[in-house]
Amino acid sequence: MADIATRVYNHRWKIDPVVRSLLDTDFYKLLMCQSVFRNRPDTQVTFSLINRSTQIRLADLIDEGELREQLDHLRTLRLTRGESTWLRGNTFYGKRQMFRPDFMEWFENLRLPPYHLEKHDGQYELTFEGNWPEVMMWEIPALAVLMELRGRAVLKDMGRFELQVLYARAMTRLWEKIERLRALPGLRIADFGTRRRHSFLWQDWCVQAMIEGLGGAFTGTSNCLIAMRRDIEAIGTNAHELPMVYAALADTDAELREAPYRVLADWHEEHDGNLRIILPDTFGTKGFLDRAPDWLAGWTGIRIDSGDPAEAAETAIAWWIARGEDPRKKLVIFSDGLDVEKIEELHGRFAGRVKVSFGWGTLLTNDFRGLVAGDGLAPFSLVCKAVSANGRPTVKLSDNPSKAMGPEDEIARYKRVFDVGAQTASPVIV
Amino acid sequence: MADIATRVYNHRWKIDPVVRSLLDTDFYKLLMCQSVFRNRPDTQVTFSLINRSTQIRLADLIDEGELREQLDHLRTLRLTRGESTWLRGNTFYGKRQMFRPDFMEWFENLRLPPYHLEKHDGQYELTFEGNWPEVMMWEIPALAVLMELRGRAVLKDMGRFELQVLYARAMTRLWEKIERLRALPGLRIADFGTRRRHSFLWQDWCVQAMIEGLGGAFTGTSNCLIAMRRDIEAIGTNAHELPMVYAALADTDAELREAPYRVLADWHEEHDGNLRIILPDTFGTKGFLDRAPDWLAGWTGIRIDSGDPAEAAETAIAWWIARGEDPRKKLVIFSDGLDVEKIEELHGRFAGRVKVSFGWGTLLTNDFRGLVAGDGLAPFSLVCKAVSANGRPTVKLSDNPSKAMGPEDEIARYKRVFDVGAQTASPVIV
Repeated sequence: MADIATRVYNHRWKIDPVVRSLLDTDFYKLLMCQSVFRNRPDTQVTFSLINRSTQIRLADLIDEGELREQLDHLRTLRLTRGESTWLRGNTFYGKRQMFRPDFMEWFENLRLPPYHLEKHDGQYELTFEGNWPEVMMWEIPALAVLMELRGRAVLKDMGRFELQVLYARAMTRLWEKIERLRALPGLRIADFGTRRRHSFLWQDWCVQAMIEGLGGAFTGTSNCLIAMRRDIEAIGTNAHELPMVYAALADTDAELREAPYRVLADWHEEHDGNLRIILPDTFGTKGFLDRAPDWLAGWTGIRIDSGDPAEAAETAIAWWIARGEDPRKKLVIFSDGLDVEKIEELHGRFAGRVKVSFGWGTLLTNDFRGLVAGDGLAPFSLVCKAVSANGRPTVKLSDNPSKAMGPEDEIARYKRVFDVGAQTASPVIV
Repeated sequence: MADIATRVYNHRWKIDPVVRSLLDTDFYKLLMCQSVFRNRPDTQVTFSLINRSTQIRLADLIDEGELREQLDHLRTLRLTRGESTWLRGNTFYGKRQMFRPDFMEWFENLRLPPYHLEKHDGQYELTFEGNWPEVMMWEIPALAVLMELRGRAVLKDMGRFELQVLYARAMTRLWEKIERLRALPGLRIADFGTRRRHSFLWQDWCVQAMIEGLGGAFTGTSNCLIAMRRDIEAIGTNAHELPMVYAALADTDAELREAPYRVLADWHEEHDGNLRIILPDTFGTKGFLDRAPDWLAGWTGIRIDSGDPAEAAETAIAWWIARGEDPRKKLVIFSDGLDVEKIEELHGRFAGRVKVSFGWGTLLTNDFRGLVAGDGLAPFSLVCKAVSANGRPTVKLSDNPSKAMGPEDEIARYKRVFDVGAQTASPVIV
């Protein structure tokens, strides 16, 4: 029996918008948004899409009309009553009413602000300007739209069975990864793959496969919509945009040097427990930890998102010991460019020495490498970052100079202020 | 939008009966049935299920109640008006009205006769007795029921994603076979996999994948229901049951020796063109061809279904040459235990020397080898054969002694009458 109404509905374009809800975003965006809403609501911020994989000429691949249609659709979305109820009533990280009533009221009325789109040299220049709490909500869905439209463009001429076999292969590949992960005792791993996922439906499939295949070792997803629908934990804490914007707002070098700690001081006031996770690499991990106030060593853990992850974890362990903390009680979250081999290696090296956890991103939700001719579905390095705040450029150094962002003179200034020495460049996979 | 009516319907058992139509059978059964209906309608024949893979204890795997339910369901099936219209109005092998009105009238009223089911030593003894045209229609659906229920038994405790990945792997495997076959110039291949298929839905998927993946090189399916639904050619000519029963009915050795030719004489009267395909191996290919009347050498081709296929094809080529025929105008259909390697090998050796065609069976529609623990889905050798006719046992020798069937003394008598010398045994894969 075909359901005629469903068929007719499906004929319309909305059968699968890339982003179907304001909750189809990373949980940490909501936590950060609430923090920004309270502490820096009027900051004028510009977000900009940056394709680090310039050989992928997105503007040649993706039709501009289609892109605008998806972005315009995003601007029509509003938090639904059910979504709002879930945010207000659900327990996150063991805490009820994580989101305060004033923030929820603001969020319920949020519509994404306008976007600015141009084509230049085979790439899209996509920027978002406005009040920080509003524009920051563009980051994840904008990335997801670009990633998925690129995939659709590559797949559009494939036959029905060719497509089915393509997904069959991707499913088999993921399942084989899950079977390997199952062998790791005490594993804790979450999905961090929203932004560069192959598609929403595919991310949802991956999450469900992880639930069935890993059981309790799968700790949740960063995607709020999927967390809500699949009734699992929403995972995430904070990201580089906080120190980047706080730093850009600093008036002096002294203030600049203090900015990253100011971020965490604000965070400290709001959150405890497993939400107190340091992200140390924005302006270099080593210097950040060396200069850190003692109260930061009391935090629950650290997230390692660039550079050599084992080296960074060793740096953190040494730092905790130096500050009189027991590393075995600390959480180390690895979240940069992970795949099974790397997870096995890091788990083998650090399990027992610290509490280890993994935020598995693009190679969980978008590993179609080698599955189409010309490798047209291989993931690539697309980011959407705050590039200026109140008219001043932002800077990110990270522990991998290939990931550095910002005007050259500002990068030089930040390197001096944060006392960043020589760094080892490593290729950015995703 | 969930379609509630569909859901409620699906709750009931009939969501997927193993066999859903009297047309869910091989096309050659219908051709043979019409022939039997005209020439030997009153012959009392017993069909019996024989599991040549005795290590697979079907009665331990398959619940008897479930088996009876499926067999009982088969006995409720009648040809629908649309199915009848298709048989009456469609063109088969380029011929209109392949099925005569008297046969169609009989078929429209057919219900499958009763079955007899017992358990013995871990196996089911399943027999069908009655008028030949009626009981012969049990063969294919009975096999399909046993094969699919065994698969369902093996799959019943698997998780949803585990199942999906299982099928993903099977799809990928088939697609890789199709990609290899695509490289063979001038390939002609049909689906012969109904009887030992994994399931109806899976066979239907395989056929559709062949349509998309091979285009014109895929010549059709032996399955009438799928041929009708997918609007492709129904393929098939005749099988061993005709000479087996004709032979059993012979009163003297001389009549016995003539029986296989008598079958083909009847066939000659009814059919021409691509339906004139010799199946020579029932009582040994070599002797059959040596003693064959000259008019048989004028037939369109030969189907090779046991023994070493290359050797049998060489025998046929030599025979055609000896009878003054041009082998390049003759069709050789390989249909025994084929998989891609064998198809590539036979195609490479015989393409150009004869017209080559392949009837791909079990390893097209049921290659789940190695996909579950314990290899519980590997195909096995289940047949359903006419074992007696008017109270006399039937015999099959074939070109592989491992496939011989019948009482020992009768086998000896047949070997003498048909002058069958030493044969090489080879393992029966499927």
